[in-house]
Amino acid sequence: MSLGILYGVGVGPGAPDLVTLRAANVLRSAPVLALPRSSDHGRSVAWQIAKPTVGEIPGQERLFLTFPMTKEPARLRPYWDLAFGQIGERLERGLSVAFVTEGDPFVYSTFIYLLREVPRRWPGLRVEVVPGVSSITAVPAAAGIPLADGLERVAILPATYGVEDLTEVLRAFDTTVLMKIGSSMPAVVEALESLGLADRAVYVSRATMPEQRIVRDVRAVRAEHGDCLDMLVVFRKDRSGVLAGEPAGTGESRGGRL
Amino acid sequence: MSLGILYGVGVGPGAPDLVTLRAANVLRSAPVLALPRSSDHGRSVAWQIAKPTVGEIPGQERLFLTFPMTKEPARLRPYWDLAFGQIGERLERGLSVAFVTEGDPFVYSTFIYLLREVPRRWPGLRVEVVPGVSSITAVPAAAGIPLADGLERVAILPATYGVEDLTEVLRAFDTTVLMKIGSSMPAVVEALESLGLADRAVYVSRATMPEQRIVRDVRAVRAEHGDCLDMLVVFRKDRSGVLAGEPAGTGESRGGRL
Repeated sequence: MSLGILYGVGVGPGAPDLVTLRAANVLRSAPVLALPRSSDHGRSVAWQIAKPTVGEIPGQERLFLTFPMTKEPARLRPYWDLAFGQIGERLERGLSVAFVTEGDPFVYSTFIYLLREVPRRWPGLRVEVVPGVSSITAVPAAAGIPLADGLERVAILPATYGVEDLTEVLRAFDTTVLMKIGSSMPAVVEALESLGLADRAVYVSRATMPEQRIVRDVRAVRAEHGDCLDMLVVFRKDRSGVLAGEPAGTGESRGGRL
Repeated sequence: MSLGILYGVGVGPGAPDLVTLRAANVLRSAPVLALPRSSDHGRSVAWQIAKPTVGEIPGQERLFLTFPMTKEPARLRPYWDLAFGQIGERLERGLSVAFVTEGDPFVYSTFIYLLREVPRRWPGLRVEVVPGVSSITAVPAAAGIPLADGLERVAILPATYGVEDLTEVLRAFDTTVLMKIGSSMPAVVEALESLGLADRAVYVSRATMPEQRIVRDVRAVRAEHGDCLDMLVVFRKDRSGVLAGEPAGTGESRGGRL
């Protein structure tokens, strides 16, 4: 029996209509949907996003898999082993499995860990990655502020893993995207204030979802604990545009918010 | 007469089925599609991507607009004025205009320049941005190499605007995305070689298009002149994964390509 195909399918940041046509096709035709959730009894955000497009398909299996939100390998391993074993059992029966991820499958996603197991667990497996709209671009769209143009540079950091050198990054990059903020919020706001950038930052949680929340004064969220669906973007906008070097008449286009 | 709505619609990196459902809806219902191209007689890449989904819609206007590939403000300005004037003429007639961009409208796109003119030219205009799949995630998907996971950090630079400090960036970031490479290719390859990272880079042009080209030995493209649809991604992968700190058993997952 030949192996099924493993798809990593990004369904975008949250709004069901930000799913791509390709994702819709793959999700409608795969015999098995692997749907991550963060607890055994919690909802799968990926399925919430995909459900309006996929609906109920006769014979299609929805395999909910639990991946707890933790950085502790000892806690993660048993969940991964269980989940990857369940996926493998389907692949080995020749069934194709679409692993559904919020945003893009290659941006801080559990699919990456699954993929890393492929050579050892299922040598020769065919893998297809369907890129999705990432919050890296959906959050700027929601906030109405471009991610980057002209000669601007962008840094993307997972804040959960330390923001010791954040000041340095904020100095060197025009746009800084802080993902997975968690307990780093106070340190992040402090770094912004020390650089005079607190007014150049936007906090967005659940971008494009009905619960979307946009906070333009990040001091107001200083005491909050972020979750995995939030992001803070710092836009310096002090050298935006190919016309940034133009001497006259473009003053209003520099340093200004849209 | 009230103004139409201005939409910035990202149609993704190139494959027509990487258009989102929302982009498809907006493009099918807008009375005017504004379609950028780089020369008066050239094709519009944005329209090539959208065409299979939109097709011929009775009464819909396709407004092709020329934005030459140059960084010289003096050359750009007259084209922008002409294009923005044509868009404004429709908006002022109450017609909604969908400005179509490859990738995402907020990632190094002409739409950003258009948006900057809004407060001055059309105060009170309603603007909606439809985020798209950016090459920032489509290129890693095509190359089969995750953009970032765990504690990894990503830097995105437009190489056209100088790579003097590239070595520093390559040292500090796990993944470096070089967009708009143009004539910087030799300098980029040299920087990679000096850091021993030439084997950790992938050059991709026209990702997800029929002409997609993936070059895993970047030394082979050293002498090439990049275009606006190419990208070079450097994946250090030396601290990937939340399990990166795990002492045993994960050695095969570090530093390895997928």
